[in-house]
Amino acid sequence: LARIALDAMGGDMAPVAPIEGALLALSELDTGHTVQLVGRESEIVPAMDELLRGRLSGLASLRARLELVDAADVVTMSDKPTAALRSKPDSSLVKGLRMHAAGDADAFVSAGNTGAQMAASVVLLKLHNGLTRPAIGTPFPTAREPVIVIDSGANVDCSPAELLQFARLGSVYAEDLLGRTNPTVGLLSIGEEPEKGNAAVKEAHKLLAASDINFHGNIEGRDVIAGATERGPFDVVVCDGFVGNVLLKFYESVAPQLSRILVEAGVSPDVLERVFRTLDYSEYGGAPLLGVRGVSIICHGSSSPRAIKNALRAALRAVDTRMNEHIGRRLARPALEEV
Amino acid sequence: LARIALDAMGGDMAPVAPIEGALLALSELDTGHTVQLVGRESEIVPAMDELLRGRLSGLASLRARLELVDAADVVTMSDKPTAALRSKPDSSLVKGLRMHAAGDADAFVSAGNTGAQMAASVVLLKLHNGLTRPAIGTPFPTAREPVIVIDSGANVDCSPAELLQFARLGSVYAEDLLGRTNPTVGLLSIGEEPEKGNAAVKEAHKLLAASDINFHGNIEGRDVIAGATERGPFDVVVCDGFVGNVLLKFYESVAPQLSRILVEAGVSPDVLERVFRTLDYSEYGGAPLLGVRGVSIICHGSSSPRAIKNALRAALRAVDTRMNEHIGRRLARPALEEV
Repeated sequence: LARIALDAMGGDMAPVAPIEGALLALSELDTGHTVQLVGRESEIVPAMDELLRGRLSGLASLRARLELVDAADVVTMSDKPTAALRSKPDSSLVKGLRMHAAGDADAFVSAGNTGAQMAASVVLLKLHNGLTRPAIGTPFPTAREPVIVIDSGANVDCSPAELLQFARLGSVYAEDLLGRTNPTVGLLSIGEEPEKGNAAVKEAHKLLAASDINFHGNIEGRDVIAGATERGPFDVVVCDGFVGNVLLKFYESVAPQLSRILVEAGVSPDVLERVFRTLDYSEYGGAPLLGVRGVSIICHGSSSPRAIKNALRAALRAVDTRMNEHIGRRLARPALEEV
Repeated sequence: LARIALDAMGGDMAPVAPIEGALLALSELDTGHTVQLVGRESEIVPAMDELLRGRLSGLASLRARLELVDAADVVTMSDKPTAALRSKPDSSLVKGLRMHAAGDADAFVSAGNTGAQMAASVVLLKLHNGLTRPAIGTPFPTAREPVIVIDSGANVDCSPAELLQFARLGSVYAEDLLGRTNPTVGLLSIGEEPEKGNAAVKEAHKLLAASDINFHGNIEGRDVIAGATERGPFDVVVCDGFVGNVLLKFYESVAPQLSRILVEAGVSPDVLERVFRTLDYSEYGGAPLLGVRGVSIICHGSSSPRAIKNALRAALRAVDTRMNEHIGRRLARPALEEV
């Protein structure tokens, strides 16, 4: 039975969205699992009371499974990522991560300052051997099942060896959180031939082809939403965090922009809402920071209660599948070809 | 009055699509403009006769404004780009470009092997001073007017100085082909702050801020389809050709993928066709290879007759506005801040 620490002060709609997300999660999860709401009790309690008297009145019985952990301070979006840990030790973000590092929580979830969460996670949870930085894997909805795009923003200038590590991290993610068996990894490039790409990608292609990864070969931008090339489907897309972040933000903008145009053209907003919901990556519940020795789930700042709920479910699944240990084993696996 | 050389053998639907595109263009352009169809007369003539007896019978009078230039050979998609010029001197691609280089044509348009067109254009037309490679600017449809994404695939690993040159090339493109006055240039990055981005982008930000460019600052992936940030609209998006190519191919895949899902959800295919037509970048007529001393327009291999027609119109506009000379002046402009 797991205890998930949730940053109640993180995100544009805190503390309401985290509180509501926590209650929604508890309503779906087996009893015995606990959510630890970390934040200013003076703000959390009235907001929770109002929710439970109002539209969540049916969930009042779940309050007992919410543990409140007071944290006096809040890391804001304008705080410098690397400074937050030292300057705001009593913040919900730092306190929640410390609870996880000390074993008082099994995972940590936040929709707050992503950079600060990354930096504090690395210091407090530590990285697995062989890694210099963590990576962020984000589920992209496709015409098939979602694929994991890694890295989607944590690392900008990446070496070929780092791209290989992303492939390992993404493979474990796809296995443990998406339930894929022997997931295949595509390398994002500008042509399917191994000699296409920039310098890092061309070299990474060689490393991947010679590694223990189930390598799909290069994929192109047009293959991402399809979730497949002519050679079959893939589960993971490896790219540097600059490209991944540009693509992620571009993709996020497609549904709102097209919805507007389609509604003007007379398409029913209800139909669009239904269709675009399948393209809503919050459905898949945040992005785990991969490579740290623990479970630190990063949510979008604009996360809805439903997105927070799904992030809590993802955290639980990462705990249940022991994803963290799995990553440690995977990274430690000798890969003779690379030496 | 301009003469535009068109590669009649280039593209998946050659020679029919080029012939049809040429006739459609002539039906819209002022009399006196000529299209030179370069390719195997033995294939062009029967195809043209069939078109003019069939669905284009109304355009039979335009045949006189089509000049046929026989070329015995064809560069295929599998030909090595750098080898085509030497190995296939009698191909439609090489012959058409030679006509332009010799002044017997005012521009060249092809939907054939893009790499071969680039390589042959650089050798035969030469680059403007100060450039080491040409760049491809592609119009991206947005919620506003289209924006030019440059580079969209010709250059992978780009230096900050090259990104600055793309900004200059893209600005001239936006002025001359899209009619923008004092176009603004956004630098594609992963955050709006100048210190966000990879190493090349961060350095390019400094060069752009100190240059003669009307610099909008950084833009993010989510801003591209909007065509604007909170600071206002932009006309040009500068990025390296790896990112640009991934984004372009991703964007191209959105309409077909979403159409399928939306039709399944009950949306009328007619409505979708109408909406997605506004997102069809072939509307804007190919992508000029920027930086060569001439007008070499690159079309998608799958170009429809309408796309070819629009590419011919873009070529004519580039000739009319003297875009090539304009680029030469722009690149030569002293920019003291950069020295």
